[in-house]
Amino acid sequence: MTENTVKPIIGLIGTGVMGKSMAGHYLKAGYEVHVYTRTKEKAQDLLDTGAKWQESPGALAQQCQVIMTMVGFPSDVEEIYFGENGILAMAQPGSYLIDLTTSSPSLAKRIYEEGLTRQLFALDAPVSGGDIGAREARLSIMVGGSSEVFERMLPLFQYMGTNIVHQGEAGAGQHTKMCNQIAIASNMMGVVEALVYAKKAGLDPTTVLKSIETGAAGSWSLSNLGPRMIADNFAPGFYVKHFIKDMKIALQSADEMGVELPGLTLAKSLYEQLAAMGEEESGTQALYKLINK
Amino acid sequence: MTENTVKPIIGLIGTGVMGKSMAGHYLKAGYEVHVYTRTKEKAQDLLDTGAKWQESPGALAQQCQVIMTMVGFPSDVEEIYFGENGILAMAQPGSYLIDLTTSSPSLAKRIYEEGLTRQLFALDAPVSGGDIGAREARLSIMVGGSSEVFERMLPLFQYMGTNIVHQGEAGAGQHTKMCNQIAIASNMMGVVEALVYAKKAGLDPTTVLKSIETGAAGSWSLSNLGPRMIADNFAPGFYVKHFIKDMKIALQSADEMGVELPGLTLAKSLYEQLAAMGEEESGTQALYKLINK
Repeated sequence: MTENTVKPIIGLIGTGVMGKSMAGHYLKAGYEVHVYTRTKEKAQDLLDTGAKWQESPGALAQQCQVIMTMVGFPSDVEEIYFGENGILAMAQPGSYLIDLTTSSPSLAKRIYEEGLTRQLFALDAPVSGGDIGAREARLSIMVGGSSEVFERMLPLFQYMGTNIVHQGEAGAGQHTKMCNQIAIASNMMGVVEALVYAKKAGLDPTTVLKSIETGAAGSWSLSNLGPRMIADNFAPGFYVKHFIKDMKIALQSADEMGVELPGLTLAKSLYEQLAAMGEEESGTQALYKLINK
Repeated sequence: MTENTVKPIIGLIGTGVMGKSMAGHYLKAGYEVHVYTRTKEKAQDLLDTGAKWQESPGALAQQCQVIMTMVGFPSDVEEIYFGENGILAMAQPGSYLIDLTTSSPSLAKRIYEEGLTRQLFALDAPVSGGDIGAREARLSIMVGGSSEVFERMLPLFQYMGTNIVHQGEAGAGQHTKMCNQIAIASNMMGVVEALVYAKKAGLDPTTVLKSIETGAAGSWSLSNLGPRMIADNFAPGFYVKHFIKDMKIALQSADEMGVELPGLTLAKSLYEQLAAMGEEESGTQALYKLINK
């Protein structure tokens, strides 16, 4: 993708909060961008600023040289890649397939392998950094697939992120994202329990943060989500329902590898209790409500 | 403690790794420092640089105006304060008692109350920052007790720490330290499980850290203890046996307040399993060995 290269046509499937920002960066940089998403109205902003609409994932795949997907669940990924008239069936040989969804490592491998038989070059490239990271093009992008394909796609990733790391072969991006979610899951219990304890002990939780957030107890969640818990602000951020999905993928994947993860197992069960309380659409910091009884 | 005030005589009971650094700062600043510790040889460095030896906690308490204690377990704290010829019995009225040990909030309240009846002014002031923080006088000090006494002792705390916060009445310092340990406990599970997962998935854990440590999964433990786990370096740092002690205090204290802390409960049980494997004297990052089976 040097200045001498013709810009590839980019297709983006899934124009939710994250996908919309991503497509926007490519439009701004002068790329031809095609979009498809389940509910067309959600793509309207992009269409108004120059994106071209496609009626299906397959139709989009036929028209684009780089096909990016940013959807909800592994079942959605499976459908748009492997479904009848899906991406794998319809993309032109030589195209690049980049799944940005947080999804299952084994599914990522299947896409990669099926792609190879059709001369399609797949990367799994889940991201972290949330809506703000996507908007400000400061995402962390964890990439699995061949080094050569990674190098070729790197200039495109640089429109979205700052911390872009090739983690290994197909599935390695998803595995790395699982590591990220595993670390977050247990830490959320610690942050929540520390602040609930503080409150029950009659301390001022904000003053407690002053003592503990700069030392060995310090974490992104303590400093960023702790104040929201203290302020009873449970708006998402990152949805409880999506976090549960990620923890399920990680536990299944760990199970396939024969590893027991007791902290993650407990965190998932607590978040499921929270969801059962009607908090699926809250931010992950709402775990505070479950412990603060 | 302005320049016009006569420097108080400082007594320090417990000259382990932490206590030794603390006493050293006061000696260097020109204070008269008396020390007592169970094994006299451990105080020899301090005696060589001008500290005066006392034969018992009570003898030390009689000679000093500010009596600091930095010992191991709540049972040690109880003995040196409440034992026959202990600090409470022997200190001169008007003296200040500062317990720097991580100990039980309810014991801190008992010392405070018993102190008041004898005109002794007690603060609970556990610290965090470890041996390096103590050596470099950059500890975080979490203080419980009256504001007036806190203000009077603040200049002395400033020889040891940089983040010195009055958290509330007697016991509040210990409660805050419990918040610190609660946040650390569950986070350690997350860090360990993320890195074990990474290894089992065939990733390079160091490369995984590059992707995840700067974002929402980031924490002091991930960045500081993660690399030690990867390098199979399980030297303390912070001892498993002391961490178990702290978690027991926190759980008992939570129980007294009627709060359930499932993450902490699990973390304590995992660390007890680890101790049963003979790892009591290892650093807390040795939890990696339990999960990486």
